[in-house]
Amino acid sequence: MLNLHLTDRSALPAYMQLYTQMRDQIRSGGIPYGMRLPSVRSLMQQLGTSKTTVESAYHMLLTEGYAVSRPKSGIYAANPFGASQPAPPSAGTDRTLSGPLPKGPAEEAHRIDFRPSAVDAQLFPMRSWRKMLHDTLDRSGEKINKYGDPQGEYAFRTVLADYLRNSRCVVCVPEQIVVGTGIHYSVGILAKLFAGIGRIAFEEPGFAPVREHFNQYGFRIEPVPVTEKGISVEALEQSCAEAVYITPSHQFPTGSVMPYPERERLLRWAQTKNAYIIEDDYDGEFRYSVKPIPSLQGLDRDGRVIYIGTFSKVFTPALRMNYMVLPLTLVEKMNNVNYLFDGPSRIDQWAMQSFIEQGHWYRHIRRMRKTYGKKHHRFIGLIRDYLGEHVRITGHSAGLHIQLTVDTNRTSGILVERAAAEGVKVYDLQEMWMKPVPSERPQIYLGFGGVSEQQMEEGIVLLKKAWEGLWEEA
Amino acid sequence: MLNLHLTDRSALPAYMQLYTQMRDQIRSGGIPYGMRLPSVRSLMQQLGTSKTTVESAYHMLLTEGYAVSRPKSGIYAANPFGASQPAPPSAGTDRTLSGPLPKGPAEEAHRIDFRPSAVDAQLFPMRSWRKMLHDTLDRSGEKINKYGDPQGEYAFRTVLADYLRNSRCVVCVPEQIVVGTGIHYSVGILAKLFAGIGRIAFEEPGFAPVREHFNQYGFRIEPVPVTEKGISVEALEQSCAEAVYITPSHQFPTGSVMPYPERERLLRWAQTKNAYIIEDDYDGEFRYSVKPIPSLQGLDRDGRVIYIGTFSKVFTPALRMNYMVLPLTLVEKMNNVNYLFDGPSRIDQWAMQSFIEQGHWYRHIRRMRKTYGKKHHRFIGLIRDYLGEHVRITGHSAGLHIQLTVDTNRTSGILVERAAAEGVKVYDLQEMWMKPVPSERPQIYLGFGGVSEQQMEEGIVLLKKAWEGLWEEA
Repeated sequence: MLNLHLTDRSALPAYMQLYTQMRDQIRSGGIPYGMRLPSVRSLMQQLGTSKTTVESAYHMLLTEGYAVSRPKSGIYAANPFGASQPAPPSAGTDRTLSGPLPKGPAEEAHRIDFRPSAVDAQLFPMRSWRKMLHDTLDRSGEKINKYGDPQGEYAFRTVLADYLRNSRCVVCVPEQIVVGTGIHYSVGILAKLFAGIGRIAFEEPGFAPVREHFNQYGFRIEPVPVTEKGISVEALEQSCAEAVYITPSHQFPTGSVMPYPERERLLRWAQTKNAYIIEDDYDGEFRYSVKPIPSLQGLDRDGRVIYIGTFSKVFTPALRMNYMVLPLTLVEKMNNVNYLFDGPSRIDQWAMQSFIEQGHWYRHIRRMRKTYGKKHHRFIGLIRDYLGEHVRITGHSAGLHIQLTVDTNRTSGILVERAAAEGVKVYDLQEMWMKPVPSERPQIYLGFGGVSEQQMEEGIVLLKKAWEGLWEEA
Repeated sequence: MLNLHLTDRSALPAYMQLYTQMRDQIRSGGIPYGMRLPSVRSLMQQLGTSKTTVESAYHMLLTEGYAVSRPKSGIYAANPFGASQPAPPSAGTDRTLSGPLPKGPAEEAHRIDFRPSAVDAQLFPMRSWRKMLHDTLDRSGEKINKYGDPQGEYAFRTVLADYLRNSRCVVCVPEQIVVGTGIHYSVGILAKLFAGIGRIAFEEPGFAPVREHFNQYGFRIEPVPVTEKGISVEALEQSCAEAVYITPSHQFPTGSVMPYPERERLLRWAQTKNAYIIEDDYDGEFRYSVKPIPSLQGLDRDGRVIYIGTFSKVFTPALRMNYMVLPLTLVEKMNNVNYLFDGPSRIDQWAMQSFIEQGHWYRHIRRMRKTYGKKHHRFIGLIRDYLGEHVRITGHSAGLHIQLTVDTNRTSGILVERAAAEGVKVYDLQEMWMKPVPSERPQIYLGFGGVSEQQMEEGIVLLKKAWEGLWEEA
């Protein structure tokens, strides 16, 4: 007999008491998975309660997957997240899912993952960041109990504006900056400020998540081809777009960099069409062996550029902090639209302000740039050594990823598959296309930020093994 | 002669070099506000540059407010944020604002602010939170360089699910929880999940920011009157709403609590109409001298309730962290809609997980409840002592604010004004109405979370002084 009790003194109704007690016992193992649960009638008798009570509790357990019903046999305890678990029986209720619940983030199955978004964990400035948090909490005093400025802490934005001017030639005052939690946060705000705009051009291939996000907000997407000089301004000029999203410092995913003349032409387009340019400078801080090109925003004299930057690459994606610099017209518009904001923790903003003010930030960037420069050099060297003339490396003048064009007549899908079979995760450029077109040679992109030099070598050796035999005959 | 230099070796074009140098000198005081700047011609000569270069730089300085043009006199350096600063001259460009830029959050002008959203700064568990952050960073290891689960850290959601079950009778599994940065974040996600829903009912009066946010997303708002038992379910049944946003544990702003029978009736409405109920339990942890009523979500057997809670009241609004519990149907829908998320810092989520797991959270809530219970008791006592029979107190069984109905024939606006003249900020209930109706007696709401007991007494004494003479003749 199960250990179950109903009481009048609970705030919960009887069916809820029964449901929670049984569920908790299933969760804790008190009722083991697979055990047959008492029949409705016997539980009614044991607890002296109504049929409705027992049936309601069972109904909840069934629809949440803590129990499964086997026809002509009874109801059995089950692990709702068990891999071998059948989907909960459809009881025709709203609570029933068509499949098992997702199980949280899947465990990484690859030994080596050339994930473009990963950064180097060893480089995180653990000691100084801990000190910043510590000191910031010490000094927070009465500020700690208030909401603060939804656009971001003003003093933090002041420090950010200085950094952006010094490092990225971004011209702005703190009033133009919106501190956020990531690119989707920024896009959410832009979607409101862009009321009246119908069509947005995107690089093709381009960063699919942002494209999809704008699409969800109801904008029409116009794909515009990417050349070795970034987005084709000529093609953009032919389009009907009223805004464009680009990654001119290091195009995602191809890695191309937009040269100065193209930038000027793009700005002229925006000025003529009264269009907006969203400049996503996601990894503009990292640049190797080429003269830095200032941000588009800094070249813009007509308030057409929205600049977006992030702490995810230079600092850590775990912090979830980014910023957007709006032209003054959009600042004005923003001030008339309330309730846009739920930005990052004030405490983190205070800590980051100190981190920058005290010089840690600049030192950290220099260190990152140096380490990534070294890793980048090594990465290119390894690819040349092991994959040789079978691949062409492009997009490697900046950032944390490169593009490979592979000399084979197989598809990029095959290349990804073969690599995966050797335990190496590489990324298919096709997936970043809105309307994929078959390219003459398959293209793959790989990030080197999150792998150690040793993993890097191991990964490239495995790639050689995976792809050998696929090479096009010379 | 100003210290300005142009060089070919800069990454910036000449006009940008000139602009940034002049602006930085104006900012640093090298060029004092009010100083007349050189004429275009003389700068051209000094720098050996073109007219376009100088004019472009001046144009940027003018439109950003670092310079002002005085007709027939010249161009003068200016403080773009100076109070006595005239608006930048309209040069017919997109960069010109119609007024001066906002200056960041305004300084609080009131001596005592009964702000309903403020919490007690003294109660923030500084030591233990610092320790959690410290330990969490120590243990973060390789996790620190990855994005993590956009829905929120899975282990944190597991701990949250347990807390919600134990404390608020919320029935859920971690897969149903979405960790966010605040109510606007949650509303942004719901707005997408509610595709197909046209009308949402709101409490009238109700929490205006959420109402306005849904309105901005294109939903039709149906105001439904609030009684002493929360939203009028009877009126809701007459409406065409397909969803309703409510604060049943402590209605905002009136403070009424929805009794059990009304909750059951509301759930029946949702089941019959296939409608959703958004339960915002913003301060449900605080409850005085009344038996706790479990969350609506815990009573829901049909997956109609979305539960939203926050760390802003019990912990601190500075953290910007909240959570939403979705019914399983919406979880399924959510899993099919990508790119919704940019939640709070992973580091903060790990720290909060430890804070809860190690028991700090429960201790903290008990301490908060005790302190707020005491403050609440004192607050009611002071109001009765000083304002006596001239006011009626309602909505005081829970939460961090109460409602006053004042015995006067003046408007609530007058009451707020008179209070402000004495340095006390109180809040006008009218502002939370969608379509304000004149009430027989004006209504004011006051929060006591953010004021000390001493400020509380001082504030009530000043309120008596402010409102004396306005009382209705007996």
